[in-house]
Amino acid sequence: MRVIYLSTEEMPRHWYNVLSDLPFELDPPLDPETTNPISPEKLLKIFPEPLLEQEMTKKRFIEIPDEVLKEYLRFRPTPLIRAKFLEEYLDTPAKIFYKYEGVSPTGSHKTNTAIAQVYYNRISGTKVLYTETGAGQWGSALSYAGLKFNIPVKVFMVRVSFEQKPMRKQLMNLFGGDVVPSPSKFTEFGKSFDENHPGSLGIAISEAMEKVLNEEGAKYSLGSVLNHVLLHQTVIGLEIKKQLEKVNLEPDVIIACHGGGSNFGGTVFPFVPDKLSGKNVDFVACEPESCPTLTKGVYRYDFGDSSGLTPLLKMYTLGKDFIPPKIHAGGLRYHGASPIISRLVKEEIIRAESFSQDETFNAARIFAKVEGIVPAPESAHAIAGAIREAKRAKEEKREKVIVFTLSGHGLFDLSAYS
Amino acid sequence: MRVIYLSTEEMPRHWYNVLSDLPFELDPPLDPETTNPISPEKLLKIFPEPLLEQEMTKKRFIEIPDEVLKEYLRFRPTPLIRAKFLEEYLDTPAKIFYKYEGVSPTGSHKTNTAIAQVYYNRISGTKVLYTETGAGQWGSALSYAGLKFNIPVKVFMVRVSFEQKPMRKQLMNLFGGDVVPSPSKFTEFGKSFDENHPGSLGIAISEAMEKVLNEEGAKYSLGSVLNHVLLHQTVIGLEIKKQLEKVNLEPDVIIACHGGGSNFGGTVFPFVPDKLSGKNVDFVACEPESCPTLTKGVYRYDFGDSSGLTPLLKMYTLGKDFIPPKIHAGGLRYHGASPIISRLVKEEIIRAESFSQDETFNAARIFAKVEGIVPAPESAHAIAGAIREAKRAKEEKREKVIVFTLSGHGLFDLSAYS
Repeated sequence: MRVIYLSTEEMPRHWYNVLSDLPFELDPPLDPETTNPISPEKLLKIFPEPLLEQEMTKKRFIEIPDEVLKEYLRFRPTPLIRAKFLEEYLDTPAKIFYKYEGVSPTGSHKTNTAIAQVYYNRISGTKVLYTETGAGQWGSALSYAGLKFNIPVKVFMVRVSFEQKPMRKQLMNLFGGDVVPSPSKFTEFGKSFDENHPGSLGIAISEAMEKVLNEEGAKYSLGSVLNHVLLHQTVIGLEIKKQLEKVNLEPDVIIACHGGGSNFGGTVFPFVPDKLSGKNVDFVACEPESCPTLTKGVYRYDFGDSSGLTPLLKMYTLGKDFIPPKIHAGGLRYHGASPIISRLVKEEIIRAESFSQDETFNAARIFAKVEGIVPAPESAHAIAGAIREAKRAKEEKREKVIVFTLSGHGLFDLSAYS
Repeated sequence: MRVIYLSTEEMPRHWYNVLSDLPFELDPPLDPETTNPISPEKLLKIFPEPLLEQEMTKKRFIEIPDEVLKEYLRFRPTPLIRAKFLEEYLDTPAKIFYKYEGVSPTGSHKTNTAIAQVYYNRISGTKVLYTETGAGQWGSALSYAGLKFNIPVKVFMVRVSFEQKPMRKQLMNLFGGDVVPSPSKFTEFGKSFDENHPGSLGIAISEAMEKVLNEEGAKYSLGSVLNHVLLHQTVIGLEIKKQLEKVNLEPDVIIACHGGGSNFGGTVFPFVPDKLSGKNVDFVACEPESCPTLTKGVYRYDFGDSSGLTPLLKMYTLGKDFIPPKIHAGGLRYHGASPIISRLVKEEIIRAESFSQDETFNAARIFAKVEGIVPAPESAHAIAGAIREAKRAKEEKREKVIVFTLSGHGLFDLSAYS
């Protein structure tokens, strides 16, 4: 069977919280003003209470609310596909599977947490949600979710992407999202820049934060890095587990691309307890050489944004002032990483590899030609990782089971292939 | 079950030839020079022998060659999805299903015939394939197929679309297709136009035909209208049949959008024998009000192109000189229609309805919001048709089974939604 489906009835009913099973405590987020552990009151200005609770809880399984489940079922469970044409192309004894998240309404895994976050904001009385977006995947997902639960969504989009990717803006507009290029004229911080400034994720975050801190009923929504965001993404890994069970296979290697960590964490976390209890499974985070957070960063406290407004998180970081060279995988251009993933890398439970742009785009082209799906440039890093592993399996003459998540399609990024 | 899948093993192994079951003979294509029935020799300058045979044959089932089947299995069988969120939104007692062809590598049903046509050209020794494309769906599909069987593909793309849809060009390039805006400098006919002329499908066809008639080893490939093209698309309807059998349902209404007829014919033909043998099933072809070939055209012989180079076909036509107003559904802007479908409309076995741009885009927006897939503007006509039928079912308080084909996604057409 090339495609392993799950029925609606087999859809996971809970998210999995990896914090419940880790044999260590995470270092707490710090207040940027005092550098002491931050108080929940301060965080409540930014996030609604149920999401803060999810950020801290040690409960193993968190029930997916009916309203969220209903939205998931519009496109989930997503298929797990045997990449047998890729196997054939590589002439490898490995069995390669990919979990395809590109079937979501906005074309990437981001919808999984967007729906949950907007739902919890809705029941907490949030009036408007602010966020930033780079390549536009997150802004699209949050706009879509905002439409579902009737909360206005306002997106600050890095100006250079805003201009290069008009279709992302159109997709956000279709779903009712309000998008402005950042730096904008709508914040004091934005006004301090020249009107043609290309912008950066750091500036866009600062603009969104400024709005949230100064507007009654406004909250902030983040698409990666934080514990509750990764929690929501565990539907990916939970589904993969069930799908592999259907064909009586266990993974030898699990691979995903890594930017802030939401796709990687969502894929891998449900398999972490297996590894902690002695199973031999390899977790590989794939990142660009040009933004090598996990492979070359330092494990320390750092800010989440460039201007130092956010709480300090203990994580692998390239430094909040790191400016990555212009690479196409906009979603992987972040200086930091999820605190949970950072710690798991530190503890050598997860390992990371980096990939050049050439190796990545070459993998993307091969994949598009043999498997017939044009991958997002971010997801192409996972394909490159799977190809490396499949070649190793060939050298070792081992019939390894390699699983990776294809987090999104690349139909909005075709110019990058030119 | 919301999504009805078929396994690889359940993939149809044959195309279905509706000509074998029709109780009448089609009028033959005529030679444009003599207006007598055209000789096969003349057609062999344009098409390879196996495709000409398929154009004429009365055999009921044509085996899908292994090489073509292998390519189909990269993305087929495609899912049949219960549109239960649309049903809920419309509060209709009808059961609505859609066959989703947007999962193909180039995002539309066109790949089904592109793969077959390139394969038969390959085994017939064709050196290069010429074609034209409007919105770009067909050019993308043929480029993809050309890559698979290693035949260079050269596409004349209507200049106004070439400029408005750069991503389509990029997709063709990714798959190795060579695309030029038409009118071009590469043909005598193209040179007769001003270099900024916006172009038309008629001009692009003439350019491709001029190349084919003057270049050794060159052949022409058409994405719709002809019998063999519709034959290849019957995998759609054959799969739908199997999928409905799995849930023990029979269709009351089958709907598809109609441009040249390939998507519509592919969907409906496998159900035609049921209707001929007395079953009560309604076939509805949905076309734009602005290009109302089946609803307002005349049933007579006409040319397939604007300059009168192609054979004459007996069909519904708005006249070869008909210039449709600028509408977004580029794939439905054709003055003629498939001769088989035309005759079935004439015989009242198929009926047609037309839809305004407003009704169509409104249907598309509703569908994107409730079902989470952004439809191609062409496919949106079928959604509009399904919504009309679902409302009728509600008025009649009947639990009708409505099936339509969603022939492609609209991710390259988002500007049309703005």
